[in-house]
Amino acid sequence: MRLLLINPNTTASMTEKAAIVARAVASADTEIIAATSQMGPASIEGYYDGAIAVPGMLRELKERRVAGYDAAIICCFDDTGLEAARTFCDVPVVGLCESAVVTAGFLAQRFSVVTTLERSRILIDNLIQRYGMGGRVKVRASDIPVLELEDPSSGAIAKLRAEIERALAEDGAEAIVLGCAGMTDLARELRSIYEVPVVDGVAAAVKQAEALVSLGLSTSKRSSYASPLPKPLAGVI
Amino acid sequence: MRLLLINPNTTASMTEKAAIVARAVASADTEIIAATSQMGPASIEGYYDGAIAVPGMLRELKERRVAGYDAAIICCFDDTGLEAARTFCDVPVVGLCESAVVTAGFLAQRFSVVTTLERSRILIDNLIQRYGMGGRVKVRASDIPVLELEDPSSGAIAKLRAEIERALAEDGAEAIVLGCAGMTDLARELRSIYEVPVVDGVAAAVKQAEALVSLGLSTSKRSSYASPLPKPLAGVI
Amino acid sequence: MRLLLINPNTTASMTEKAAIVARAVASADTEIIAATSQMGPASIEGYYDGAIAVPGMLRELKERRVAGYDAAIICCFDDTGLEAARTFCDVPVVGLCESAVVTAGFLAQRFSVVTTLERSRILIDNLIQRYGMGGRVKVRASDIPVLELEDPSSGAIAKLRAEIERALAEDGAEAIVLGCAGMTDLARELRSIYEVPVVDGVAAAVKQAEALVSLGLSTSKRSSYASPLPKPLAGVI
Amino acid sequence: MRLLLINPNTTASMTEKAAIVARAVASADTEIIAATSQMGPASIEGYYDGAIAVPGMLRELKERRVAGYDAAIICCFDDTGLEAARTFCDVPVVGLCESAVVTAGFLAQRFSVVTTLERSRILIDNLIQRYGMGGRVKVRASDIPVLELEDPSSGAIAKLRAEIERALAEDGAEAIVLGCAGMTDLARELRSIYEVPVVDGVAAAVKQAEALVSLGLSTSKRSSYASPLPKPLAGVI
Amino acid sequence: MRLLLINPNTTASMTEKAAIVARAVASADTEIIAATSQMGPASIEGYYDGAIAVPGMLRELKERRVAGYDAAIICCFDDTGLEAARTFCDVPVVGLCESAVVTAGFLAQRFSVVTTLERSRILIDNLIQRYGMGGRVKVRASDIPVLELEDPSSGAIAKLRAEIERALAEDGAEAIVLGCAGMTDLARELRSIYEVPVVDGVAAAVKQAEALVSLGLSTSKRSSYASPLPKPLAGVI
Amino acid sequence: MRLLLINPNTTASMTEKAAIVARAVASADTEIIAATSQMGPASIEGYYDGAIAVPGMLRELKERRVAGYDAAIICCFDDTGLEAARTFCDVPVVGLCESAVVTAGFLAQRFSVVTTLERSRILIDNLIQRYGMGGRVKVRASDIPVLELEDPSSGAIAKLRAEIERALAEDGAEAIVLGCAGMTDLARELRSIYEVPVVDGVAAAVKQAEALVSLGLSTSKRSSYASPLPKPLAGVI
Repeated sequence: MRLLLINPNTTASMTEKAAIVARAVASADTEIIAATSQMGPASIEGYYDGAIAVPGMLRELKERRVAGYDAAIICCFDDTGLEAARTFCDVPVVGLCESAVVTAGFLAQRFSVVTTLERSRILIDNLIQRYGMGGRVKVRASDIPVLELEDPSSGAIAKLRAEIERALAEDGAEAIVLGCAGMTDLARELRSIYEVPVVDGVAAAVKQAEALVSLGLSTSKRSSYASPLPKPLAGVI
Repeated sequence: MRLLLINPNTTASMTEKAAIVARAVASADTEIIAATSQMGPASIEGYYDGAIAVPGMLRELKERRVAGYDAAIICCFDDTGLEAARTFCDVPVVGLCESAVVTAGFLAQRFSVVTTLERSRILIDNLIQRYGMGGRVKVRASDIPVLELEDPSSGAIAKLRAEIERALAEDGAEAIVLGCAGMTDLARELRSIYEVPVVDGVAAAVKQAEALVSLGLSTSKRSSYASPLPKPLAGVI
Repeated sequence: MRLLLINPNTTASMTEKAAIVARAVASADTEIIAATSQMGPASIEGYYDGAIAVPGMLRELKERRVAGYDAAIICCFDDTGLEAARTFCDVPVVGLCESAVVTAGFLAQRFSVVTTLERSRILIDNLIQRYGMGGRVKVRASDIPVLELEDPSSGAIAKLRAEIERALAEDGAEAIVLGCAGMTDLARELRSIYEVPVVDGVAAAVKQAEALVSLGLSTSKRSSYASPLPKPLAGVI
Repeated sequence: MRLLLINPNTTASMTEKAAIVARAVASADTEIIAATSQMGPASIEGYYDGAIAVPGMLRELKERRVAGYDAAIICCFDDTGLEAARTFCDVPVVGLCESAVVTAGFLAQRFSVVTTLERSRILIDNLIQRYGMGGRVKVRASDIPVLELEDPSSGAIAKLRAEIERALAEDGAEAIVLGCAGMTDLARELRSIYEVPVVDGVAAAVKQAEALVSLGLSTSKRSSYASPLPKPLAGVI
Repeated sequence: MRLLLINPNTTASMTEKAAIVARAVASADTEIIAATSQMGPASIEGYYDGAIAVPGMLRELKERRVAGYDAAIICCFDDTGLEAARTFCDVPVVGLCESAVVTAGFLAQRFSVVTTLERSRILIDNLIQRYGMGGRVKVRASDIPVLELEDPSSGAIAKLRAEIERALAEDGAEAIVLGCAGMTDLARELRSIYEVPVVDGVAAAVKQAEALVSLGLSTSKRSSYASPLPKPLAGVI
Repeated sequence: MRLLLINPNTTASMTEKAAIVARAVASADTEIIAATSQMGPASIEGYYDGAIAVPGMLRELKERRVAGYDAAIICCFDDTGLEAARTFCDVPVVGLCESAVVTAGFLAQRFSVVTTLERSRILIDNLIQRYGMGGRVKVRASDIPVLELEDPSSGAIAKLRAEIERALAEDGAEAIVLGCAGMTDLARELRSIYEVPVVDGVAAAVKQAEALVSLGLSTSKRSSYASPLPKPLAGVI
């Protein structure tokens, strides 16, 4: 099984970090193909970054078809362009947020997502409401710019831990979801510190993608995710 | 007051039709600047078309800044890229769906949206749930490809009327919202036929944009719609 | 265009203050006809005041028909008798709360309403849930009796500002809605102090009423708002 | 225990019919004091009728204080002025719709309300959503003017039965709630015909009022239902 | 009228305490038959205790049929096995949580439930969401093991009062619901201390059961609560 | 990895059928341990059957601890006793309904569940609302007693297919979920007939259980699912 792990931002170090985690949790017969978008912003912080990242991600999904992949994982917690990708692809596509909250939902009745900047907080909250988990989840921002997660000296981890501690103390959180792909390498350590489930979207998405492929299931092409109709396209996208 | 009416698809005839309606309802001192995206699909039918239309629309929003505009209207009923545009712009930005359902909400307790293709139906239903109107609205598809609305001989109007009649008979609809920018020129006639409010998103959006400008209000830059952070951008978007 | 601004309480100074704001935001060709109910309580604070204010408001709506008006604005943030008025009138009727939250919804994803007394807080919260905005809005009371807003020496403004500051600090509010018609003259100043959108219901309602009239739309008479059936009425109402 | 059964419309024959049912289900030590509003419409069909009925009902609640009552029942399925009455009274006040849906909720997971005219359907649906039962209940109109229920030759019962049969066949209704005070005398017979619980609001409200009085509980005067503040009242209400 | 008050835990002292309250509020012609499950845990604290308590409770419901009862009350605030009991019985069955929140709903717009341990908090919150009251209620745990409520020297009452005070101060609670059958004897005193309605589930359930029996209504056997189908049963239950 | 597939009903042929499907989709290094409850009903049709099945299932979960298992799957679409099992176990526990709707949610925006008897329909609908999928899913009953699925000559498959066809025609379903463990062997064939995703809970649950174990995650023991407190147990359970 070949899973395409596509980072919709253009920072290759984030892709690499995610690929390490993905490979560590993948089944023995799963190959992780890590891809970084070649077009778009260096990080996705808010609606604008997300919107302009989509065409680059879709292009990557298209170009990688030659070599082939059995499912795709969009490696951003905002589930950037997830619906467009599902429409575009014939194979299953999963997002990090969707995978993580679904996974946490098997483990806890109430939990908190800790993301990076305030500007992403409501965006993620809206996603989670769409996924039906709104009544069970609180989203918190920890005031960490995404790329600071790439820099061990940045103090980002201390901020993240402080926010997790607030979630445990104030929200009654029974589990924690890490709300950024750049936090993927921290889950295991945080789990041992706080003794609650700490769910990372990258790892969760790998398992959901594997599950769908194993089950022989793919995106319904009836109605919402029907393949794009052929039509004139102006300009280069 | 200068309102930018930006069509996120690349079909200029749709822009022109919408501009005629927009100018007809605009206040005497409002100038409608009609713009057609130069990059993207000829019509927006489903998630993929919507996603790839956004960069072209954002480019237009940027380039038109030189001449200036006081608010922008995204001229597609899917509210394509609305949140990205709000983040990007300092002036108010309104969508057709949001404007139309808000307007209908002042006139009726329950109403139906009649859109084009089945693939757009749930997309619009999800939007309306986000706007808080889910419990009051039913969305219907009339099996009309968007560009058939540009062709009077296509039979599109008969299909649309049949679907409106089903909405009135089966949904208990107290009003009808036309769920595609391409239907904008039909509202007045349908209103006189069916004797219920028939709301067109283009006209509704013009009035909402004018309202926000008159009130001296613009998009909050606190949290969700904070201006994009400066960051490296790879490739051409 | 003639808009009837009907104050459902019987305090003429509140009507006058609202009329000044209404005229300031109205279009050049809009005439604001300010009317004060002649029957009912001096202010509307809670359910009882609201209920006994309605007949006086409806009488005014009836008597002003001779001179004519194109739409009516119910000038109380509780949207007192709004549905009865829609049923009674052939022209559009808008409320302050409905208009204000709709307007704020174009500008912010999450926002707070700051009203007067605690007894009005849940009443307004229930209204906002009916309008579908429950998940996006927090309502706060600032412990100000309505008529204190008429008295500059009352300390009301300091209380209001303190509550707005709590909304910004604690709720993550991206915008503020002023939850009483008596606060209408404060919006502009508060906007410049807090640098977020501050929405006043009076001004918002004027623009919504103008929008509906311009669009040639009026309340649906199908089902919920069908005109009252003729029937015997006992007593004087 | 003395329960005031107050009919907010001015048709005494409806009051009498309801009083018979109320006395039949009341406990041995409960006295039913039946009162008809002296001011307002002959029947309540839609928002306008409801609004103008409230002052007459409140006056009756006030005047009957001399003789005293331990709780009040508002004898209309629209729960006309219920919140105003709760604010006004120191004793518990219950509505027919609220009592009936709560009662049905102990007996069935999903049920249907069958009311009179289409114009009351959404009004009742909104009430039921406020009471939290929206997901469990479907409201249907049977096209019966309220006062036809007073006339055995009107064909009203046949229409009502036809609508109940549709509810059982199409909605999966496990129980039926009669959605008008004027249907109160029909519950027992319909129950034996259809072999499902048929809940009448008058009877249900008597038991809820008795329950609250027996429990020594009354309306909270904290926040929402705080007693009206003393203030100038213009005109006669 | 004979009401079976069945305690699904096996602590007879709790049954006795509840029976005293039940008899105090019951109508003169109501006989309270108090029964303690003979099989299961000594207290119900969380999902596991609840699940293993059900068969013992159902056995009691079955064995008591010989002597007969007109309705049953499940005497635990978790509404343990309520739906199974409704399916099993031909007479009405009511739960404490359902009865208490319904009762409080007639008295207050927003209220708080104060229960025992944190492990029961979300369980009750989920129940209340099912009953449609989620938007009106906050559930709080007071860190009291259930059986400490049987011991006056345990400090339980001080903890309970502290939590009620937090509910009043922080939640805007207009009424309090006691979230454990073991608190049943405290309602009257707490009501006089805090001057808000304090609702106890045992007393509330007695009145709801009496109401249903008086109304001649029983559980619908259509669909959800249809009587169990005859089928092989392995083992002893 | 060892997964315990525990059938909470006592029909061993259903366990065997499910085990075949489970083994077919399990990863190469996953061992499926199939277990049939020794105590309880032969099939689970409605609330009563479900409640009395739980102790037998919990006993099996306990006794199988000696040999050990890494996660448990409750093999009934009603997610019988799922929360009690999560509280009881230290390893992850997943249900069929939860797993299936989560899986379908990655593939379709709107889908339908087709279950057996009408008495299970609302039970499953309520589950799905708890899982947050209520707005996306319609549940249908096909009038098939569970054990008829064990008998190829019963006509059950024809009924099931007819109901699936109604779901596709009337609900706009983009995917189908099979709402009974006894349908597990039919998914693949139905998928090829109808060309939409057909999700079977048994297979879906195997992959979710594998995912959780691979990720090193288990049920949170904070709050809702905290391990049962030690306490006296009366009788044999």
